[in-house]
Amino acid sequence: MNETIERILAHRTVRDFEDRTLSAEQIETIVRSAQAASTSSFVQAYSIIGVTDPDKKRELAKISRNQAFVAENGHLFVFCADLHRHDVIGKMEGKDVAASLESTEKFMVGIIDAALAAQNAALAAEAMGLGICYVGGLRNDLEKVRDLLKIPDKVLPLFGLAVGYPTCINDQKPRLPFEHVYHENEYQQDDEVYKSQLEQYNNVITDYYVERTGGERSDTWTSQMAEMLSHPQRMYMRDFVEEQGLNKQ
Amino acid sequence: MNETIERILAHRTVRDFEDRTLSAEQIETIVRSAQAASTSSFVQAYSIIGVTDPDKKRELAKISRNQAFVAENGHLFVFCADLHRHDVIGKMEGKDVAASLESTEKFMVGIIDAALAAQNAALAAEAMGLGICYVGGLRNDLEKVRDLLKIPDKVLPLFGLAVGYPTCINDQKPRLPFEHVYHENEYQQDDEVYKSQLEQYNNVITDYYVERTGGERSDTWTSQMAEMLSHPQRMYMRDFVEEQGLNKQ
Repeated sequence: MNETIERILAHRTVRDFEDRTLSAEQIETIVRSAQAASTSSFVQAYSIIGVTDPDKKRELAKISRNQAFVAENGHLFVFCADLHRHDVIGKMEGKDVAASLESTEKFMVGIIDAALAAQNAALAAEAMGLGICYVGGLRNDLEKVRDLLKIPDKVLPLFGLAVGYPTCINDQKPRLPFEHVYHENEYQQDDEVYKSQLEQYNNVITDYYVERTGGERSDTWTSQMAEMLSHPQRMYMRDFVEEQGLNKQ
Repeated sequence: MNETIERILAHRTVRDFEDRTLSAEQIETIVRSAQAASTSSFVQAYSIIGVTDPDKKRELAKISRNQAFVAENGHLFVFCADLHRHDVIGKMEGKDVAASLESTEKFMVGIIDAALAAQNAALAAEAMGLGICYVGGLRNDLEKVRDLLKIPDKVLPLFGLAVGYPTCINDQKPRLPFEHVYHENEYQQDDEVYKSQLEQYNNVITDYYVERTGGERSDTWTSQMAEMLSHPQRMYMRDFVEEQGLNKQ
């Protein structure tokens, strides 16, 4: 197996970083790697904001439920779906692009473009021996994030990517069974097979927790997920996204 | 520079493949690579459908504006945002997860999770010496895609990923200027700087086309984008997504 695939399969989340900032060259390599990703019809519908200001980082850490690593890392990137540039382009070229930019289709394109770019960035960072953690917690309060980073209309911050020199590397959590995620020619139609795969996975996850915690924790994946999802989170999102001028029609 | 970063930076789209299918082992490595990507709060909100049935592939190619490579490739993966499994889990665990699953927040999570996984898959394929092309054209008619692949409620096909042995490799199109995509501490506030970066990029793109076509084509990026976006595409998307039970609240 080659180096790239080994690296992909070895991914682990890092939430503890040395107090050592990334160099300008490292940041540039990470961003250029992000830019090399595919983009839908060449629209390049994303932007990346690097946050170095310590006050802003502290604010972003607070928003992310006080996760210290959001402030303390080698560099914090914020990935945004971005159709603001296309709004400017419409004006430059005298074309009416409003309906396109407000569409759910283009909202999806912006999210997909940003995420493809982010995963390239994450892998490039890991290839340099750095660790990474995505920060979905920014979505706890996007209004604050928007104000803090002076984000214009038609741009939506999606998540952070904290990068740095790892001091502590987490274990790799086992993923869903291959057969449960990968379907052939049609989505799995047999409910019993589908549920038995989830139960099989529950055993794997329970074993994982029991082993890691000396038996103190033994929950299943389905109980975790059901508990989490029974408390709806970030229900302001639909209105906020529309307020930013996206996902409106 | 190491192998992984070189590979990321060397990405080129491939739309012409040998008549040679991927092995089961190659498919498994690609899917396991996808699964190794980060996932928001461990929800793993995506599924991948491998399409091998020639009739289905022909139908998907038709939907994608008759792009031949959608039918003729080594393997066609379809990446879906998937909250169906969490719906099943809610029932298994006797918890009400409806509001979560219908939220714009979780719709975004499903898209992000699927795209992160897809980019890992794309890079793993390229690391094996294969070529890839994303197929956003599936979104031309997701109702047909849904029926063809028997996709349940709360699942949304996002794009295809055609993979195979390349016969012809495209040039690499220059990306937006680094400074235009990467902002520091706040989104670029100076409109004149912002526009001048776009104009600088227009020159790069015009040069690229002139050189490639011996002067026959000389359009700019902003004119391309404005023209494309002035014809709203796939405006059925918002209703369709809601019909699938996503992005509703």
